[in-house]
Amino acid sequence: MREKFNSFIKNLQKQITNRLCELEKKNDFTTEKWFRKEGGGGITCVIENGLVFEKGGVNTSEVYGKLTKSAKNQLKTKFENFFACGISIIIHPKNPMAPIFHANLRYFELYDEDNNIVDKWFGGGMDLTPFYIFKDDCIHFHSVCKKICDNYDSTFYTTFKKKCDEYFWNHHRNEARGVGGLFFDYCRENSTMSIADWYSFAVEIGNALMDAYIPIIDKRKDLNFSHKNREWQKIRRGRYVEFNLVHDKGTLFGLRTNGRIESILISLPPKVKWVYNYNPKKNSEEEKLVKLLKEPVNWI
Amino acid sequence: MREKFNSFIKNLQKQITNRLCELEKKNDFTTEKWFRKEGGGGITCVIENGLVFEKGGVNTSEVYGKLTKSAKNQLKTKFENFFACGISIIIHPKNPMAPIFHANLRYFELYDEDNNIVDKWFGGGMDLTPFYIFKDDCIHFHSVCKKICDNYDSTFYTTFKKKCDEYFWNHHRNEARGVGGLFFDYCRENSTMSIADWYSFAVEIGNALMDAYIPIIDKRKDLNFSHKNREWQKIRRGRYVEFNLVHDKGTLFGLRTNGRIESILISLPPKVKWVYNYNPKKNSEEEKLVKLLKEPVNWI
Repeated sequence: MREKFNSFIKNLQKQITNRLCELEKKNDFTTEKWFRKEGGGGITCVIENGLVFEKGGVNTSEVYGKLTKSAKNQLKTKFENFFACGISIIIHPKNPMAPIFHANLRYFELYDEDNNIVDKWFGGGMDLTPFYIFKDDCIHFHSVCKKICDNYDSTFYTTFKKKCDEYFWNHHRNEARGVGGLFFDYCRENSTMSIADWYSFAVEIGNALMDAYIPIIDKRKDLNFSHKNREWQKIRRGRYVEFNLVHDKGTLFGLRTNGRIESILISLPPKVKWVYNYNPKKNSEEEKLVKLLKEPVNWI
Repeated sequence: MREKFNSFIKNLQKQITNRLCELEKKNDFTTEKWFRKEGGGGITCVIENGLVFEKGGVNTSEVYGKLTKSAKNQLKTKFENFFACGISIIIHPKNPMAPIFHANLRYFELYDEDNNIVDKWFGGGMDLTPFYIFKDDCIHFHSVCKKICDNYDSTFYTTFKKKCDEYFWNHHRNEARGVGGLFFDYCRENSTMSIADWYSFAVEIGNALMDAYIPIIDKRKDLNFSHKNREWQKIRRGRYVEFNLVHDKGTLFGLRTNGRIESILISLPPKVKWVYNYNPKKNSEEEKLVKLLKEPVNWI
């Protein structure tokens, strides 16, 4: 399973960077391989200062060895030996009318002292963070999510959509990071899903990521925008930074396992502003967003 | 002591905003009072988009009531009833040749169920975060720190300077946030210092904050700078954000005690950039800074 999933995500990485590049006329992804002293490494594909993509990362990594103490605490396990591989995608479009896209898929194994597998699970998800609300985009995105879920279990979409809303809640701001999507974690074999089923679920999600995002970015990338729209984007990106650095378990896990800092923090937006106590004007599009993020929305 | 220190910091707040305003010809501080539902409140003084100060906050607050569970954990106490008051100052100058200044002073009391004081202590410090190294500035700043410490105990400067270097260590980057200063916490009465002595120590520090910073900002505020210098400032401000949101106990304590978010996060810089894997040119002034932050420096 390790090798199978690892090879799937490496292929997916190429497919995704290729599809994104079709939209981008100025810049291309640069690729860097890195190695982790304690075991493993990764491939980081980055695009910066594009016409469409102001910053984007499509990263794969496989890390293994011994969990640090705080990583053990986070996973609530007594076992030390681990393997993890995953792909993560973060896209910060230049146009404020286009949403930030984030997704990841990961596979985890834990071993006892004799290197027998004692636990294994899949995790992942995808979610959207707009600066301006286009209902059609949200509905399209959630429809792609739901369609895959429904192939496996009629409860999955509701469950994983709810988990996404809970996970990407920016607690100290008491608002959602964005308009959600799917989030699933600790997907272990159980009475209805074998680990092979979870693998195939993760693969279907992976293959649908660009179907979920490309039509949206394609529609929004050339819309007109003002300096004011761009300022709003930078201010809202600040909330994205706050979530990722204060609450995001994935980011914190990376920092705790001596992950490669530059690959982990590629999620941080290119240009950000913090303005004291900024409140959008009454009845503006900006205020609409803020109100909408006050509680989860059922898009379908 | 509560009332005495509270009135000292309120006065100090006025003095500091007045002295900073003498340097700033464009904008002024705006003052906002806020109240905390659970008890207490604060006064937030903010300046934005000045010629000298791109963003600055001089805040006082007094909060009391019951500690939340996670605040109790952070303080490692079984007592719930608390009082805390403090002043905190953060200055983000516009000129990249001028350093970020940060300081705070705080007084804490814990009570048993009958409202008897069971613990009380002072804490605080001041520190400097330059984008370009001017040795004179660092020496001046540390000299002011040392002079006050030496009035009380010949070991204080060394001890509190070291605590500052340790506290403002940006662990995931394995570098210092800046060039340090002083950091002291849990300063309780002991065989050599009564609580009145700690009060007078905190007062002397408070009164010296502007003596430490004003000569520096005054020297650097009108220096020429290039677009490249400004970009470097924005990138380094990113590290400041990372420290404050990932590691700073003060920020996290604020978020956990239902502090006023906008007053806590006023520490975040106005304009910030994250560039993937940015490395300054060999032998540049930018590289000098990065090298210097690799380990604490004895400035005196």
